[in-house]
Amino acid sequence: MTDSSDMAMTPPQAAERTSPFTTVTIVGCGLMGGSLALAARAVPGVETVVVTDTDPQARADAHARGVATRVVAEAAEAVAEADLVVLATPVSAMPGLAAEVAGYMNSDAVLTDIGSVKSRLVLEVERKAGDIRYVGGHPMAGSERSGVSAADGTLYQAATWLLTPTEHTDAGALAEVRSFLRLLGARVLEVSPELHDRLVAVASHLPQVVSSVLMAVAEETSRTGGEPVFSVAAGGFRDTTRVAASDPELWVGILSSNRDAVLEAIDAFGTKLLALRQAVAGEEWSALRDVLAQARSARLALPRKGVAGILVDLVIPIPDQPGALGRVTTLLGDAGINIEDLAMRHASEGSRGAMVLAVNGEAEAHRAQRILEANGFPSHVEPR
Amino acid sequence: MTDSSDMAMTPPQAAERTSPFTTVTIVGCGLMGGSLALAARAVPGVETVVVTDTDPQARADAHARGVATRVVAEAAEAVAEADLVVLATPVSAMPGLAAEVAGYMNSDAVLTDIGSVKSRLVLEVERKAGDIRYVGGHPMAGSERSGVSAADGTLYQAATWLLTPTEHTDAGALAEVRSFLRLLGARVLEVSPELHDRLVAVASHLPQVVSSVLMAVAEETSRTGGEPVFSVAAGGFRDTTRVAASDPELWVGILSSNRDAVLEAIDAFGTKLLALRQAVAGEEWSALRDVLAQARSARLALPRKGVAGILVDLVIPIPDQPGALGRVTTLLGDAGINIEDLAMRHASEGSRGAMVLAVNGEAEAHRAQRILEANGFPSHVEPR
Repeated sequence: MTDSSDMAMTPPQAAERTSPFTTVTIVGCGLMGGSLALAARAVPGVETVVVTDTDPQARADAHARGVATRVVAEAAEAVAEADLVVLATPVSAMPGLAAEVAGYMNSDAVLTDIGSVKSRLVLEVERKAGDIRYVGGHPMAGSERSGVSAADGTLYQAATWLLTPTEHTDAGALAEVRSFLRLLGARVLEVSPELHDRLVAVASHLPQVVSSVLMAVAEETSRTGGEPVFSVAAGGFRDTTRVAASDPELWVGILSSNRDAVLEAIDAFGTKLLALRQAVAGEEWSALRDVLAQARSARLALPRKGVAGILVDLVIPIPDQPGALGRVTTLLGDAGINIEDLAMRHASEGSRGAMVLAVNGEAEAHRAQRILEANGFPSHVEPR
Repeated sequence: MTDSSDMAMTPPQAAERTSPFTTVTIVGCGLMGGSLALAARAVPGVETVVVTDTDPQARADAHARGVATRVVAEAAEAVAEADLVVLATPVSAMPGLAAEVAGYMNSDAVLTDIGSVKSRLVLEVERKAGDIRYVGGHPMAGSERSGVSAADGTLYQAATWLLTPTEHTDAGALAEVRSFLRLLGARVLEVSPELHDRLVAVASHLPQVVSSVLMAVAEETSRTGGEPVFSVAAGGFRDTTRVAASDPELWVGILSSNRDAVLEAIDAFGTKLLALRQAVAGEEWSALRDVLAQARSARLALPRKGVAGILVDLVIPIPDQPGALGRVTTLLGDAGINIEDLAMRHASEGSRGAMVLAVNGEAEAHRAQRILEANGFPSHVEPR
């Protein structure tokens, strides 16, 4: 169904130095739109950043936070001078907005969006935007905070920004959006709208479903078996169910908007689960080992967060006392070693644990180890 | 199938001050057995701790690490003087060892074990141990390290230790083992062997299965769709697949030894997954919301790690620069505030993140917030 022409990765180290867009208008001024406005203002060649929002409070906050050159009430007015218009509202509002702003945009301006689901949306926006050149997009970034007050001009730095061109997409518009996003510091990845939806279904929506179902099973077992499932739940259970605590309302919206790809992902999961079940039931231990080993290899090969290099995990047993964490992180900070990732590992609930700390590259890891060892914190390196 | 008589929790704050066992022998000297030996030596009333292992290297390491009063090659000799014998070998070796040591134990001594699966094991050991009083057990503790060199005398402190009495269990022996474990600092929970196996199937074995299957689906999607599932994988995917990196050999052993309960747990999961799938397929959004909301409530109600009190999470946005983590943890360490849990939250791969830090209780959380705020690190409290 898909082949390699469906996607192409462009590295963040682009040659472009100046934005193809001088005036950028962002429709919708929450955390995502506000952060984009802040980031756009810092892009060479961008002279004017306009934001608009139907909510007076959001406009007041945008003004107070100083995210844009101008804050405008009417979308029609906001887009009139724009070279690039970015829809940053909830997905459900986007097709209507596209129809509205297309009538006021310059004929050579470009329209894009940051909607989190693409197949149906891209079709609809293409239809509503008429002759205006449109490129669908979706930045893989976010924050635990919301609202323009929490806007962060670095939100999209090193983030993957998916663009979803179709056969109707203007090649020049695509190149201009790509160039602009690279100047924001994002890594641009082009995929078809259909592949986009399949990818987020597997990478984001399926984990949510699986985590919620697992938590529901544990809850039911606790109710019918006494209460103590949670008394024996250790780190693996906590990790695997963490996203089950997410907002149900938000997730109903996401799962419903990506219904077909979500169903496909659930079915792929169900098929593999059934195969594993049959290996256990039939005591086919070698087949079971193969499934677990395949999953293990894939997990260990998961790309690391860092763009600067390969992250290396250091595992440091930590005495359970105030200050130990501080000493470790201060020792590394004083040595100019950046901690890229950090987690506590509890061998089980309540027992002694270790600090797992990621640094950039083997050399940095060994330097960190020497410094920690010399200060009474032995550590070992672990595959990530 | 089970009712409340199947289990009973005893708090760690027990009145006992002296061990009912003077001489404790541990058969099998790896990380678990070695840690138990170290812990037992510190229990008031315990005068002699003997360890034995068939592996000469393990015995040499046990000697070097100083875990016991005596290190003995022959199990027969090791158990001869014991008041309590603990089997701490792989589960598969336990029934044979029970038969072997029962012939050499004092008739009033007690036998227990730390095997991770119980139904079949308890039956077999009861049969093999003959007249020797036996109580099955399973501490919910472990470590990412292995071997007696990594033994840790505090491994079982505040850990949940399951005991699995049956109708054949001697009430006096049960009371003595319970009392000894409390003196180790463990929290003792009594469940039937069958309930034990159901609990660990849901709390530990099912998460492993689900995590591995999810990773396998992502891997297959990447292979057939190009490669970029992992490019869009963010924190939720990482959390949910973390245990998929576990050792396949170890897990084949665990899943095969708890086959029936694992199948039951997989089936419960499959049933709930199918129901959720049908809600999505049938666009029954209210039913979907109910499942997600039920899971969310259960996840938020998950008991916290700390035994001293309820943990509270502080979320602190952290500038991505060397030293910031160190400043935060040092500020709290200097104030005598213990960090009970710690994680980095990346909004998505490569984007700016926050530090999530758990402290004991609301009061401590507010004190921490004031200190951090005063030093330029605003934070907010989040439900755990």
